[in-house]
Amino acid sequence: MTLDLNSDLGEAFAAWPMGDDEAMLQVVTSANVACGFHAGDAVTARRTVRLAARHGVAVGAHVGYRDLAGFGRRFLDVDAGTLADETLYQIGALRALAAAEGVRVTYVKPHGALYNRIVHDEVQAAAVIDGILAAGDDLAMMGLPGSRVLQLAADRGLRVLREAFADRAYRADGTLVPRSEPGAVLHDAEAIAARVVGLATTGTMTAITGESIAIDADSVCVHGDTPGAVAIARAVRTALERAGVSIAPPGAA
Amino acid sequence: MTLDLNSDLGEAFAAWPMGDDEAMLQVVTSANVACGFHAGDAVTARRTVRLAARHGVAVGAHVGYRDLAGFGRRFLDVDAGTLADETLYQIGALRALAAAEGVRVTYVKPHGALYNRIVHDEVQAAAVIDGILAAGDDLAMMGLPGSRVLQLAADRGLRVLREAFADRAYRADGTLVPRSEPGAVLHDAEAIAARVVGLATTGTMTAITGESIAIDADSVCVHGDTPGAVAIARAVRTALERAGVSIAPPGAA
Amino acid sequence: MTLDLNSDLGEAFAAWPMGDDEAMLQVVTSANVACGFHAGDAVTARRTVRLAARHGVAVGAHVGYRDLAGFGRRFLDVDAGTLADETLYQIGALRALAAAEGVRVTYVKPHGALYNRIVHDEVQAAAVIDGILAAGDDLAMMGLPGSRVLQLAADRGLRVLREAFADRAYRADGTLVPRSEPGAVLHDAEAIAARVVGLATTGTMTAITGESIAIDADSVCVHGDTPGAVAIARAVRTALERAGVSIAPPGAA
Amino acid sequence: MTLDLNSDLGEAFAAWPMGDDEAMLQVVTSANVACGFHAGDAVTARRTVRLAARHGVAVGAHVGYRDLAGFGRRFLDVDAGTLADETLYQIGALRALAAAEGVRVTYVKPHGALYNRIVHDEVQAAAVIDGILAAGDDLAMMGLPGSRVLQLAADRGLRVLREAFADRAYRADGTLVPRSEPGAVLHDAEAIAARVVGLATTGTMTAITGESIAIDADSVCVHGDTPGAVAIARAVRTALERAGVSIAPPGAA
Repeated sequence: MTLDLNSDLGEAFAAWPMGDDEAMLQVVTSANVACGFHAGDAVTARRTVRLAARHGVAVGAHVGYRDLAGFGRRFLDVDAGTLADETLYQIGALRALAAAEGVRVTYVKPHGALYNRIVHDEVQAAAVIDGILAAGDDLAMMGLPGSRVLQLAADRGLRVLREAFADRAYRADGTLVPRSEPGAVLHDAEAIAARVVGLATTGTMTAITGESIAIDADSVCVHGDTPGAVAIARAVRTALERAGVSIAPPGAA
Repeated sequence: MTLDLNSDLGEAFAAWPMGDDEAMLQVVTSANVACGFHAGDAVTARRTVRLAARHGVAVGAHVGYRDLAGFGRRFLDVDAGTLADETLYQIGALRALAAAEGVRVTYVKPHGALYNRIVHDEVQAAAVIDGILAAGDDLAMMGLPGSRVLQLAADRGLRVLREAFADRAYRADGTLVPRSEPGAVLHDAEAIAARVVGLATTGTMTAITGESIAIDADSVCVHGDTPGAVAIARAVRTALERAGVSIAPPGAA
Repeated sequence: MTLDLNSDLGEAFAAWPMGDDEAMLQVVTSANVACGFHAGDAVTARRTVRLAARHGVAVGAHVGYRDLAGFGRRFLDVDAGTLADETLYQIGALRALAAAEGVRVTYVKPHGALYNRIVHDEVQAAAVIDGILAAGDDLAMMGLPGSRVLQLAADRGLRVLREAFADRAYRADGTLVPRSEPGAVLHDAEAIAARVVGLATTGTMTAITGESIAIDADSVCVHGDTPGAVAIARAVRTALERAGVSIAPPGAA
Repeated sequence: MTLDLNSDLGEAFAAWPMGDDEAMLQVVTSANVACGFHAGDAVTARRTVRLAARHGVAVGAHVGYRDLAGFGRRFLDVDAGTLADETLYQIGALRALAAAEGVRVTYVKPHGALYNRIVHDEVQAAAVIDGILAAGDDLAMMGLPGSRVLQLAADRGLRVLREAFADRAYRADGTLVPRSEPGAVLHDAEAIAARVVGLATTGTMTAITGESIAIDADSVCVHGDTPGAVAIARAVRTALERAGVSIAPPGAA
């Protein structure tokens, strides 16, 4: 039993800090590092990669829409060619910073509104895949199981990393309960930790309506941008270790 | 007798065009491609590299201050660590776009205010070299002969490309006449072409005060951002060819 | 018979020029001046206003999404509160620059993707109106006749300016033929001029399917961002003058 | 005995918070509100002004270099015309947001590197004054006593607000000890509070070398961007109140 824990890191921008990357890098095994389009900058990205390497944490490119003012959380109707080239640009920039720290970027995870959009938007999904493939076929693609983008990624020969969410409620059909609905986000650290242990040991989670559902997950996303989130992430890791689950980056075993 | 002709290209930004890159890529042998910090964007950079490859033109990373609003022409008192990481970020982004077009980035040329600053500013010069070396020691550094940055580059093992300017007047000591002084910029295409032929064939130019001065140049910069400039660039190339000078990227022979 | 001619101006950004504002300000009677979010900057906006004043041209705030990289032409899913405040911010900035030139900003015209969005998007339309009303109730709102935003503007007491397009084909129901369809954009200067004269003198235009349709228009938009467009704009003005149509800003008579 | 306490507020940007504005607005009597060029955005600025009004705090425009990536703390060699227009743009934007909250912007305080530059740089100082005067002669100019910019402001008819720093050591000649020198910044809340009380009641402070020096100050700057800073600000206010010093915006008495 092995599980990867990933988190969005390196999201500071210029003088503005965000999250406690140092704390989270002691918890997770994969760091989704912002590349400067929705958050992050050259200095932050390089420092985050350096810290990740120190803790044996894998590094992925967290690519986003070109929208600092919206933190990449707003849908942007960017054309496919631009999105592909901007994906490639972000990966290339992060790769150079990572290489300078002796680190290889091993996967790509889209951020925020882009992540959600390419669950179903064929054109933007294909554009992101185009950008990744232009950067090389050795990168894995992390995303939502069943999403259009993961299907496309697999079709075109990319390794895919299926992601579950530690603190999000699921419907009986395996999709996420939208944030706008009650109970969509879990807050109790012990309950969240127990869910993730269940996922790691049985491959199932309990849906919001009570059914046990199968979830294929290579990695579990934990958030780190609030003090409470760090405590939850730690509870998840501790519970996994107690349950005998090995926590490691994908493919590290 | 071989000479490289270089020009600043890929300086469009988003909806705003700049210069006639297609025309210039039929004239020059090295393209300094903007990386998105002072000008350019992912789409423009990739297209410029693609066109450069089609014409057999070498590609360099034209790195600049993070100042789109000033086109990188304003001195920015950025600290050394940031400047190094931003240099690396820009090189990495361009490299990924270039690699997707089957092209290798072979050199780095700083832009505008940064170019001028590191002629003498030890700290920023060292930061740029740090950024380049972090990207790899296979990149050459293009700059002003006698500048602090080229000395540092050579000291630290980088190959250097010394650049002359086709349309700028020189003083008897080999430095450029500042733009603020009369006669600093030449405008007559034939006179400019004749100067460059003289440089290529004799290694000398005539100073503004009449003396013949030795100029060590691996490359000559021609501008392309106005229709007139394109005509001058063409006149330079034609005159060189007539004089039997081989025009090729550095190291291509 | 009086008609206003308006054009999008002040769309240069930093070192990048766009359009021939000087030429267009001799043709139009209303200038939609970019406010720095999708295009333009403080220097460009002030210069454009100064030139507008010199030619007796009315000044409107051309507000857009915060998306320089997309020239405001991409839909951005910005929340209502932010859109209202950003609309107000842009109007305030332009007003200060205009006041320094002795000019009053008399209307607001949304740009690009925002313009098109609020034809039907109730939430973003209301947000733009909120932003305008926060700036004062003396501003008129320019937009597409029949659009949701003009209805809301009128409901909330703003004066509305209904806009027709000189070079766009209309359907029999009075809506524009989408750009993706053949014949959507007219290119012949004389034909365009004749259409606008017909509109000014009869209040009708001929639909793409041949029917005569009534168009209520206070202003006609002419484009100025290409040399050809300037020629078309001049042809429109000349034809209107020959037909005895008085060309003046709305409310100037 | 009356003293104004001012602080830099509204420095959040998009998703990134900064400082505890709510806490500081219960301490200070003047809020220097960021205008979006070095920090802040439309939503943040408007919210800050609204809170300021609720606490009876005066509002000033905290104008800065156009450099979000450097938080306005890096010298930028911007030309005078651009700096004047950008100053005006920022004031206009903030004024519109403030007016929508029923608030008048009463003064301008330059930020960071611009603040420091125009202590001595005649050209940039004059440009800032030009920008302020273009916005109207009812704005006061806040800055360092003895600075070139305050002299120019007074010469050109602007009301000036001379500012002292609660937590900075002074030399015997009344200038600030540079941050690079030991003892330049004070950290002890009680000591800082005592200094400000001394300034308010005697018009003097003790220099780092022990001399008592006269300081003409209309306002004292307290920082609020760290939890410790808020505590210091509160200690200053409490001590002033105990000493019978009335704390109010300039001109409020």
